[in-house]
Amino acid sequence: MLDNQIKQALRSIVGDAYFKDDMESLVTHSYDGTPMLQALPDGVIYPRDTSQVSAIMKVLSANRIPLISRGSGTNLCGGTVPVQGGIVMVMHRMNAILEVDMQNLTAVVQPGIITKKFIEHIENLGLFYPPDPSSMAISTIGGNIAECSGGLRGLKYGTTKDYVIGLQVVLASGEIMRTGGKLMKDVAGYDLTKLLIGSEGTLAVITEATLKLIPPPKFKKTMLAMFKDLYGAARTVSTIIENRIIPATLEFMDNPTIRVVDDFAKLGLPLDMAAILLIEQDGDPESVERDIERIREICQAEQADRVSVAATAEEALKLLTARRSAFTALARLRPTTILEDATVPRSKIAEMVMEINRIAEKHQVQICTFGHAGDGNLHPTATTDARNTEEIHRVEAAFEEIFEAAIQLGGTITGEHGVGLVKAPFLEWKVGQTGIAIMQGIKQTFDPLHILNPGKIFAKESRRRVVIDHA
Amino acid sequence: MLDNQIKQALRSIVGDAYFKDDMESLVTHSYDGTPMLQALPDGVIYPRDTSQVSAIMKVLSANRIPLISRGSGTNLCGGTVPVQGGIVMVMHRMNAILEVDMQNLTAVVQPGIITKKFIEHIENLGLFYPPDPSSMAISTIGGNIAECSGGLRGLKYGTTKDYVIGLQVVLASGEIMRTGGKLMKDVAGYDLTKLLIGSEGTLAVITEATLKLIPPPKFKKTMLAMFKDLYGAARTVSTIIENRIIPATLEFMDNPTIRVVDDFAKLGLPLDMAAILLIEQDGDPESVERDIERIREICQAEQADRVSVAATAEEALKLLTARRSAFTALARLRPTTILEDATVPRSKIAEMVMEINRIAEKHQVQICTFGHAGDGNLHPTATTDARNTEEIHRVEAAFEEIFEAAIQLGGTITGEHGVGLVKAPFLEWKVGQTGIAIMQGIKQTFDPLHILNPGKIFAKESRRRVVIDHA
Repeated sequence: MLDNQIKQALRSIVGDAYFKDDMESLVTHSYDGTPMLQALPDGVIYPRDTSQVSAIMKVLSANRIPLISRGSGTNLCGGTVPVQGGIVMVMHRMNAILEVDMQNLTAVVQPGIITKKFIEHIENLGLFYPPDPSSMAISTIGGNIAECSGGLRGLKYGTTKDYVIGLQVVLASGEIMRTGGKLMKDVAGYDLTKLLIGSEGTLAVITEATLKLIPPPKFKKTMLAMFKDLYGAARTVSTIIENRIIPATLEFMDNPTIRVVDDFAKLGLPLDMAAILLIEQDGDPESVERDIERIREICQAEQADRVSVAATAEEALKLLTARRSAFTALARLRPTTILEDATVPRSKIAEMVMEINRIAEKHQVQICTFGHAGDGNLHPTATTDARNTEEIHRVEAAFEEIFEAAIQLGGTITGEHGVGLVKAPFLEWKVGQTGIAIMQGIKQTFDPLHILNPGKIFAKESRRRVVIDHA
Repeated sequence: MLDNQIKQALRSIVGDAYFKDDMESLVTHSYDGTPMLQALPDGVIYPRDTSQVSAIMKVLSANRIPLISRGSGTNLCGGTVPVQGGIVMVMHRMNAILEVDMQNLTAVVQPGIITKKFIEHIENLGLFYPPDPSSMAISTIGGNIAECSGGLRGLKYGTTKDYVIGLQVVLASGEIMRTGGKLMKDVAGYDLTKLLIGSEGTLAVITEATLKLIPPPKFKKTMLAMFKDLYGAARTVSTIIENRIIPATLEFMDNPTIRVVDDFAKLGLPLDMAAILLIEQDGDPESVERDIERIREICQAEQADRVSVAATAEEALKLLTARRSAFTALARLRPTTILEDATVPRSKIAEMVMEINRIAEKHQVQICTFGHAGDGNLHPTATTDARNTEEIHRVEAAFEEIFEAAIQLGGTITGEHGVGLVKAPFLEWKVGQTGIAIMQGIKQTFDPLHILNPGKIFAKESRRRVVIDHA
């Protein structure tokens, strides 16, 4: 509960209309895209500009009140759930594209701009901003930066961190700090820009970002390769890359995912396939044609049952949209959908899929797997029911073993969704006690009062590893 | 001076042959590639592996003795001068390529491998590692990572930070920490890999790196465009990029640089040109031809005096080698050569060159400018004489104004050489007092006893800005 004096101070910064603490507002901001996590904040605030964010932080730090900055809350790690109460700061009013610099190929944006809206604006100017998380129709660029979002084009083009070259942030103290700039090279001190990207709102509030844009590819082609043998599909992923071809997109869907996506998007996909690869290449027409032809040969050598190239841009878009809808489609199956993103070296995709299936069967839970195969970034997704406590325990046990398996294969607990609340107990498995200690020291430097998104990334207690490491 | 017990402890870790404290060894490691900086270490040590590095760090931290890790010492910021004495750790014995993974397109190397040797090894396997600092024939990958080295291919391919995806480091305490891995996506906690890249040996000792490799371009073409008008050359740089063409290399040399490079490399360059652009494009043959043709048109529209495309690979290599030799060639002019790397948004190249010339004239010093124009990363280079104190003061005053001008144009004090000793007094101009405070907090977390490369990055006192900021 906030005392009236603090509420008054916050109202005087943003105006009465932009601070809310009625129950409807609090409940609306008590959860995010992650199932089964909810906690009420004490207030919700909507700043208009950086100076308001700074003034708000000064009030909050003087009173040691937690601050959870958020965009649309589409994250899947509980990253914006206000577990220790405090103020949720919604960045949607700060949604301007401040500049597109056609000479330097950069854009300066406020954090609340919707990712897809920004991408469309940029594409209309004949430029390209590759990071395209599946949530992009509703997610914000600020949220993408906080989580270091990936997407379908990550394999060839990299993720959010590869396109953010400067930031303006407000620190816990209310101080405003700028990092980087419109500079392709800058080694003046430690790379604070990259450190802030993916810091999940625990180090500072992002108030402005300078983004790198690139020339768009001139041409693209999309193809589907369907496999009756799951491991043929997985081997195809490695083989394509071993052949020095880096497709723009190289997505994987297993049989259960194919079934629900087809039912959702009415694509007429063959339902007896063990796996489908959705492959897109872009670039100059000649090289795209050459790559697609070579990929077709590789698919056939790996016993693909069918390989088809989209005849038109509409057909290609339909396929991509269907893949993007996998999460939504799976969510219709049962009341609760838990999507994870264990990631492995791409050569280990086949082993990882095999492990996921073995673990799902062991715990008698339904796990569908799809994801960015070219990155080794899989999304094993459990369809379950939050009201069935016993089943949820089995789902949690299964995911614990899936994280363990990913680590054993040289992978990580999260490729693009972030640690947040959900994976905090497992972070030590990836980065070790030393890594945790260093990260906590960095957190302490930025946020000595621990008011920025408290309770995230660092767990009170790390989960003990269930499997003995024989490495 | 080290006491005998400490020397004995260090000798017992590496063996007598690999710890040295004779005067010849100390003098040899008292300086690096930066002129006019020298300080004697107390000893020089050559570890064989990570466990030796760890054992050494335990001895040094127990006794609060500074440690300066280095490769070949080719840096140009005084980054490896042992200004507070202590032990210089030379990484040359740890020079193995531990693995090249053809399925994941990654390599694991020890830090002491020579950059060019690694690049050649990788190219023989049909793969590509783009970062190519001009020092690459002698520099080490470990040194490149410590400085976040750039190079001629940075414009299209990025710099060292874009290719290091995992590290093994030894902390000041002697603890061994791993970050990242063979993973194209990994958001498990703060990005310590990127934080360590470019940290100039002040946060940890790099003992192993996992590098991302990419498919090599199939084809390349090299061209020279010569301009009698300096600003025509500079405008050409912006116009090429505005036309959505990102060349692999886009280098700039001004008239004084042309003269010395030609004298050095005997290329028969016309000596009456104000500037030459060296442009290289790579990729598929069709797109390279198209880009080169379009670039030729742009050069001609900007009144280029001559545009010539290298007829053979040998001719192209000769041109590139000549450009790489600019520093060496300039170094023959006068006893002391001071090379800087003020960097600006690429649209500001013309203004920056104009400012450099104005400042050089004002202070009556000779400054030649060349560099990676496509990145806005210029290398204004003073040819002077360290024995002439009065002239050196004028050179220093000129560089101070050049850094100031770069900042005023939205640039930075260093694009690829690092802060080290030389630019420490100017760091605050770029990152502000808040940025410095945050960076010092990070330093404190990694190295609470301040034994890792002390005296670097953070100056005792920041230089006051001479020009009033009207922004």
